[in-house]
Amino acid sequence: MTKEMSHKSEKTLMNDERLSRQLDFLIEIDRLKQVLRRSPLVDGSRVENSAEHSWHLAMMALVLAEYSNEPVDVNRVVKMVLVHDIVEIDAGDTYAYDTNGNQDKVERELRAADRLFGLLPADQTRELRDLWDEFEARRTAEARFANALDRLMPLLHNYLNEGRVWQANHVTADQIRRRMAPVAEGSAMLDNVVETVLIRSLDRGYLGEVQEG
Amino acid sequence: MTKEMSHKSEKTLMNDERLSRQLDFLIEIDRLKQVLRRSPLVDGSRVENSAEHSWHLAMMALVLAEYSNEPVDVNRVVKMVLVHDIVEIDAGDTYAYDTNGNQDKVERELRAADRLFGLLPADQTRELRDLWDEFEARRTAEARFANALDRLMPLLHNYLNEGRVWQANHVTADQIRRRMAPVAEGSAMLDNVVETVLIRSLDRGYLGEVQEG
Repeated sequence: MTKEMSHKSEKTLMNDERLSRQLDFLIEIDRLKQVLRRSPLVDGSRVENSAEHSWHLAMMALVLAEYSNEPVDVNRVVKMVLVHDIVEIDAGDTYAYDTNGNQDKVERELRAADRLFGLLPADQTRELRDLWDEFEARRTAEARFANALDRLMPLLHNYLNEGRVWQANHVTADQIRRRMAPVAEGSAMLDNVVETVLIRSLDRGYLGEVQEG
Repeated sequence: MTKEMSHKSEKTLMNDERLSRQLDFLIEIDRLKQVLRRSPLVDGSRVENSAEHSWHLAMMALVLAEYSNEPVDVNRVVKMVLVHDIVEIDAGDTYAYDTNGNQDKVERELRAADRLFGLLPADQTRELRDLWDEFEARRTAEARFANALDRLMPLLHNYLNEGRVWQANHVTADQIRRRMAPVAEGSAMLDNVVETVLIRSLDRGYLGEVQEG
């Protein structure tokens, strides 16, 4: 409670209204570091959070941009993946294979986007909101490639952890194939990685083709 | 040990040599999520790690670029902060106020940069290494601004946690002023934030002007 009060009072940290709003936003988004995902770190020691995941995607964008099906402005891809999960601060991370949680996901995330990006000065609210909308709509080359990265990375994490999270959640190869469809839309080359990983996961028994029982 | 072996075997994940090197690098840098810093999260619940810190700096760059003393290519600032801590995977995070740890920091980080960026194909080794060298040298407008952000953010985190980490490490206002000198080089406006934070921290007793005892 004291903590909450103390943050609120920092709204007056600077007299400059614009800078104050910007600092408030930057302080608020620190909470993305506490939004936990299902996917484990590569070494399996804990699950990852959405802030460090966003950093990892940005690095992927820098390193793998050459594999986009269409030419992309890599800087725009980087910006998109940096902001793509910020709504989870209010809306939470919805597990990809959670049917119930995904029903009201859109509405929850829209409300979150209004509040969170709305902390910024109006021009920057617009700028970041446009990036998030673009990512979600998957209608530009940059958004398609950014979404491909966002799907591929947790697949690699789960594969390198011998599919333990898949097994715990009874996820099948078929579900993963559907979930990974956006990878092919963004990058045929990275879709080869998906296929290789799926074949090996089935071979090694990390994953079943169909639901058991 | 099995874990270690299993990762090594993924060097053959793809037949394509270039893509294999890129994926190996991206899997290796997952370890930055386990490099712990001294600065706590804004809510004080735990210390932050260098991967999520890098994401936070990239967001700062997007939001605060207008305050750079000199015009900057914000995309280059973003790239620089994304890669600036990767060397810590091998070299560890050296606490800013740790005199001993800082003596061999340069050498440790140079070795780390050789190994880690060297995992990539040669052209990308060069590209990321150049970004890191530029950040470290602080001779371009982008590097000066990136360094300003890297100094300012932990100050805010410590201030919002009522200086507990400063007190535990007997850090004085004078030491912080010296540590924060690069902020003014990058942004006079953000240097005002530093001054405001320092004055309030002294007023509220978060911080002493000189070492006690």
